[in-house]
Amino acid sequence: MAGSTYGTIFKITTWGESHGKALGVVIDGCPAGLPLQEEDIQFYLDRRRPGASHITTQRKEADRVEILSGVFEGKTTGTPISLMIHNTSQISGDYNEIASYYRPGHADYTFDQKYGFRDYRGGGRSSGRETIGRVAAGAIACKILKLLGITLCAYTRSIGPIEADMSKFDRQVIAQTPTAMPDPHAAKAALAYLETTRQENDSAGGCMECLVEGLPAGIGEPVFEKLDANLAKAMMSIGAVKAVEIGDGHRVARRHGSENNDAFRMEEGNVKKSTNHAGGILGGISDGDTIVLRAYVKPTPSIFRTQETVNQSGQEIDINIKGRHDPIIVPRAIVVMECMTALTILDAMLIHMTARLDFVMDFYTNRRTPSI
Amino acid sequence: MAGSTYGTIFKITTWGESHGKALGVVIDGCPAGLPLQEEDIQFYLDRRRPGASHITTQRKEADRVEILSGVFEGKTTGTPISLMIHNTSQISGDYNEIASYYRPGHADYTFDQKYGFRDYRGGGRSSGRETIGRVAAGAIACKILKLLGITLCAYTRSIGPIEADMSKFDRQVIAQTPTAMPDPHAAKAALAYLETTRQENDSAGGCMECLVEGLPAGIGEPVFEKLDANLAKAMMSIGAVKAVEIGDGHRVARRHGSENNDAFRMEEGNVKKSTNHAGGILGGISDGDTIVLRAYVKPTPSIFRTQETVNQSGQEIDINIKGRHDPIIVPRAIVVMECMTALTILDAMLIHMTARLDFVMDFYTNRRTPSI
Amino acid sequence: MAGSTYGTIFKITTWGESHGKALGVVIDGCPAGLPLQEEDIQFYLDRRRPGASHITTQRKEADRVEILSGVFEGKTTGTPISLMIHNTSQISGDYNEIASYYRPGHADYTFDQKYGFRDYRGGGRSSGRETIGRVAAGAIACKILKLLGITLCAYTRSIGPIEADMSKFDRQVIAQTPTAMPDPHAAKAALAYLETTRQENDSAGGCMECLVEGLPAGIGEPVFEKLDANLAKAMMSIGAVKAVEIGDGHRVARRHGSENNDAFRMEEGNVKKSTNHAGGILGGISDGDTIVLRAYVKPTPSIFRTQETVNQSGQEIDINIKGRHDPIIVPRAIVVMECMTALTILDAMLIHMTARLDFVMDFYTNRRTPSI
Amino acid sequence: MAGSTYGTIFKITTWGESHGKALGVVIDGCPAGLPLQEEDIQFYLDRRRPGASHITTQRKEADRVEILSGVFEGKTTGTPISLMIHNTSQISGDYNEIASYYRPGHADYTFDQKYGFRDYRGGGRSSGRETIGRVAAGAIACKILKLLGITLCAYTRSIGPIEADMSKFDRQVIAQTPTAMPDPHAAKAALAYLETTRQENDSAGGCMECLVEGLPAGIGEPVFEKLDANLAKAMMSIGAVKAVEIGDGHRVARRHGSENNDAFRMEEGNVKKSTNHAGGILGGISDGDTIVLRAYVKPTPSIFRTQETVNQSGQEIDINIKGRHDPIIVPRAIVVMECMTALTILDAMLIHMTARLDFVMDFYTNRRTPSI
Repeated sequence: MAGSTYGTIFKITTWGESHGKALGVVIDGCPAGLPLQEEDIQFYLDRRRPGASHITTQRKEADRVEILSGVFEGKTTGTPISLMIHNTSQISGDYNEIASYYRPGHADYTFDQKYGFRDYRGGGRSSGRETIGRVAAGAIACKILKLLGITLCAYTRSIGPIEADMSKFDRQVIAQTPTAMPDPHAAKAALAYLETTRQENDSAGGCMECLVEGLPAGIGEPVFEKLDANLAKAMMSIGAVKAVEIGDGHRVARRHGSENNDAFRMEEGNVKKSTNHAGGILGGISDGDTIVLRAYVKPTPSIFRTQETVNQSGQEIDINIKGRHDPIIVPRAIVVMECMTALTILDAMLIHMTARLDFVMDFYTNRRTPSI
Repeated sequence: MAGSTYGTIFKITTWGESHGKALGVVIDGCPAGLPLQEEDIQFYLDRRRPGASHITTQRKEADRVEILSGVFEGKTTGTPISLMIHNTSQISGDYNEIASYYRPGHADYTFDQKYGFRDYRGGGRSSGRETIGRVAAGAIACKILKLLGITLCAYTRSIGPIEADMSKFDRQVIAQTPTAMPDPHAAKAALAYLETTRQENDSAGGCMECLVEGLPAGIGEPVFEKLDANLAKAMMSIGAVKAVEIGDGHRVARRHGSENNDAFRMEEGNVKKSTNHAGGILGGISDGDTIVLRAYVKPTPSIFRTQETVNQSGQEIDINIKGRHDPIIVPRAIVVMECMTALTILDAMLIHMTARLDFVMDFYTNRRTPSI
Repeated sequence: MAGSTYGTIFKITTWGESHGKALGVVIDGCPAGLPLQEEDIQFYLDRRRPGASHITTQRKEADRVEILSGVFEGKTTGTPISLMIHNTSQISGDYNEIASYYRPGHADYTFDQKYGFRDYRGGGRSSGRETIGRVAAGAIACKILKLLGITLCAYTRSIGPIEADMSKFDRQVIAQTPTAMPDPHAAKAALAYLETTRQENDSAGGCMECLVEGLPAGIGEPVFEKLDANLAKAMMSIGAVKAVEIGDGHRVARRHGSENNDAFRMEEGNVKKSTNHAGGILGGISDGDTIVLRAYVKPTPSIFRTQETVNQSGQEIDINIKGRHDPIIVPRAIVVMECMTALTILDAMLIHMTARLDFVMDFYTNRRTPSI
Repeated sequence: MAGSTYGTIFKITTWGESHGKALGVVIDGCPAGLPLQEEDIQFYLDRRRPGASHITTQRKEADRVEILSGVFEGKTTGTPISLMIHNTSQISGDYNEIASYYRPGHADYTFDQKYGFRDYRGGGRSSGRETIGRVAAGAIACKILKLLGITLCAYTRSIGPIEADMSKFDRQVIAQTPTAMPDPHAAKAALAYLETTRQENDSAGGCMECLVEGLPAGIGEPVFEKLDANLAKAMMSIGAVKAVEIGDGHRVARRHGSENNDAFRMEEGNVKKSTNHAGGILGGISDGDTIVLRAYVKPTPSIFRTQETVNQSGQEIDINIKGRHDPIIVPRAIVVMECMTALTILDAMLIHMTARLDFVMDFYTNRRTPSI
């Protein structure tokens, strides 16, 4: 369990380093018969790429995906889908210096402690570029979920002290602002805040949120494989995430049960909840309501100020980090959040198909599979 | 992956319902040669049992553990350890009524949606009693960690609006108050708050925290099996937890990088950090500092007030829940948090033993394993 | 992966030693809604128990199964089913002597090498009694397969040099002879052979075969999780099995392709094969024909003759094993073979339900799951 | 579990089809610090390539491996190693015809039944080219095993009726004959047999054997993850293998216990066995003796004779297969057997490192891991 494989049925394995030849992912267990083209995946990778604004890294990568296997005549075959994205804009020279010391807030020290040495170029495997494989695989999961009537929408909830006003939520705005905020007013304020931050050679944190709509009730498992438990793992596995919430999250701790319980009611013959403090999950299983997921992201640890640290010889030194770094991680991590959520939910949905004897009987006895 | 198995090397499988004959756990992969007695486990189960105070359920269970396999002449044999705890105080009559409707905030509705029906007695598998197996297994993990010089300490950080003052932290106090708070002043205030809550037939939420000390650097994996990702899953898999934090958690989202980065420095020849905003984990791998973990728990959904809900026939009804319920979950969940943390960390430590060629070479070529 | 868990979706975890308090199994992932009683399981355990004849051990165990969880109102709930069988007839005194030396053909030496010591009473975890958990779980798998129209039939193909004449195959005979052979003539000869063997204080080996009928085409996976690969693992995981075959097995190595290929033909509108050299599996996936599986079992290593071995002090000694041992393993292992086959096939069938997009679309969009 | 991932700690995921752009494998969990170059892997791939003789396919592929990630400054980093081999010699035109019908002995029909359609070019994922990823990953496992003093040697035991005389075993001969037999005499006879077979437009089967020397006692697990169970799975997962044996294999079924038991004895202070009928494994755990493994391979199903089959429209037709096919699979599968054995054994060895408390204590408390 060296940790680059994720999922039980829809299983992905990512590989690649920031400054290696390429990055990629192998998806095993993708249902056969899905129409799939490189464009389906490219669309998500493009959302992940840095834009033209001040708030993203100056490293420009084309990040063109190539399908190497698992697709025949435009459809997935049920066998492993191998996706590769070449690195083209590595400037490893920027990183030679960091080979010898440990950047605060980075994984340099812990990788050395774990493995005895590290690929220091651009952070190697601990770079944000590691998420390319997740996004490429997640694009496929999102495509399947969409066919099943399930839509995901991730956006920036806050940047530093600037919070989106959710009463002004406008889904269109998310893609129109480099902040990925759904509220144009807050987006403007956040950009100003980030500009100041950047001028002070500093970086900012923020909060991202993902909504999942259309998920039927019954998805997830009790006990260890709760849907929210797996979503929490998925979120915390994204570099720089330090807190995860479902529904009302940490706010529930200050409430009374009478305030926090969501009453059930009937609506057009269906069971609904009057409120959604629970965020769409009860006892680890989806309740049919919108899944609400939040992840809090620390400020980019690479800042352009002098910092104190130690080097590999055990000397205390002052350092000034060079290179190309986003002053904030959140807007580019939005699509990673969406993809990790999709991967987690799709896998849970596939597992759920085997949960009941009547499902199994229906599949094997009522379905007519003509041998020709 | 029906979800009752946890861990890769130190693997546990729990079973049992609130009102079934018994509950238990099978631990597979426990290293051979560990001295183990029922008392080692009983000590942790007793910490989980309701106390004599007003703030815990009136259901009294002896919760005596029995070792059924895997221990010979007082030591673990390396084969599965089966632990069983009989249920003795089931009063299922209390629950017959809930068979027909869906309690707000509970998993009744989602279990029905998933499985087509449910064991409604006391919540069945979704009951808090499900955690007995986790605690029994976790007691063994804790014992091993202790032998390795690693100590865990979980406590109540807050109850409703009452927060422990960490400058008054006193480890002794935790076991002395039914609140499990480490600050005697806050504990007193919390008890008063809970008494009021109880009198209003309501329930309260809270926050629990766990510190892990002595963990060496290098534990955990990059990418999906990050130590913090697995801890987040472990926490969110505990019923009623709605938010999880590592280190400074959601507070990092409002900070600048210059505030949030932990500078490295030397201390007696060892690398240390000047601060611990990161909570002891960088890039998913332990950094040698204290692991700081927080979980936010919703108020007990079973409250003794009239609530609106629907029944299985699709009628909107008013209900009044009976039965025996804690007005707050947190103090009894403390030991569950500690145990889930221990299970997660021990498993990561066992996996880490294979991370480097020099570890493997050292084990297989330098060690002298005489054949007699 | 300490090795007592088997399966991906229908996942079982066995525990228990020959002379411990009890043995058992936890089944996680059994579909909800299956009618299940202790009698369903007891029937299979009774088939595993030693009979009254000379060819089985004199140890008599009631082997009564108890369902501890996962069944409510006579149906499986989808949560873990815990089954326990108490040991009642342990005579550990028989085994004190073997604590100090290594019995030829047994796992005494290898357990000591692996774990540093061992539960020597009756072989501990390496005893044939370990299979009780497999049979208890397999009984449930068999019940589900039967509902899906799939039947399994295992029997003794040969004992020592005596081979069943398959042209005289009579399914009824299997249960009527202590040899479990399907040919009454061979059964008689085998009994005579075993009687001679027993009188010479020796033991015998044999071959067992299992036929699976009614399995639809398409079950299994390409590459590593081939249906035959998993069946081979399942068979070789049964103690004393030293060879496994699918279809014509080792005989194919001497054939030409023109002799070994099974021609396809049409029969009442369905694709069939003219012959079944392949044993019902092509490329790791079932082809709709009968699955033919064979396992070769070594003679019981415990024989009542003087044998040379070494003790734990490294001295060469002569030993005479005492205790109660079957002179042949095969007839009692038949039901274990059937159960391991059932567990493997059912798990593959559950996984197959997610193999195609049209299966998933059909499940989630065409099925009508009313929320009430 | 779509089946293209193998292993628990040393985990590989293969991908690619016979006529796709490329084939490859991702190795996750390879210990850090292993010196690794493309040449290490190329050596094994070259052993797998068809030679110049009549007995191998006329398809010529360079099969050059490229390391895409996981190696830095000539050493493995502990993160995923991605290996890719481009297909360069696809002549898909050869295969257009087979799109419409089911070749006897092939997986065409079962793939269609499973997935609804298939990549028919060269057999797609069910082609023998699928093993390229296994060999590339296995080369790394072999390199590590060699460093640990463990050597593997696979060879052809028989071809059709021609059996190698093991008393004339000469390791040098294996690489010198296109038959991969260790006995020059038998090799010559086998070549003559294959030439006749080829002239008759037919194909031949055979048996391959693998010896593992230097493996310490204690490797493997009891119950389901027995070393021999996993080796059996590994062997049967290789296309065309229909029988697997450990040690004396199917011959044990005709023996008495007194003939089959291997007596223990002392040799220079070490426990040894007088004979090795068991093939180096007792109770699923290695006993320190040579591991003896055998796999029986069916004749190549593609033969150049007219065969009867059906097409996708359900018509019975006569076919004549074209394309480039080996008249025997065995000699080229030898290296696949060796690699699958190495992968299985290395994974078991890594898992074994966590089997005892004293191992864990030794690793975490006695080892001195300086933080710098």
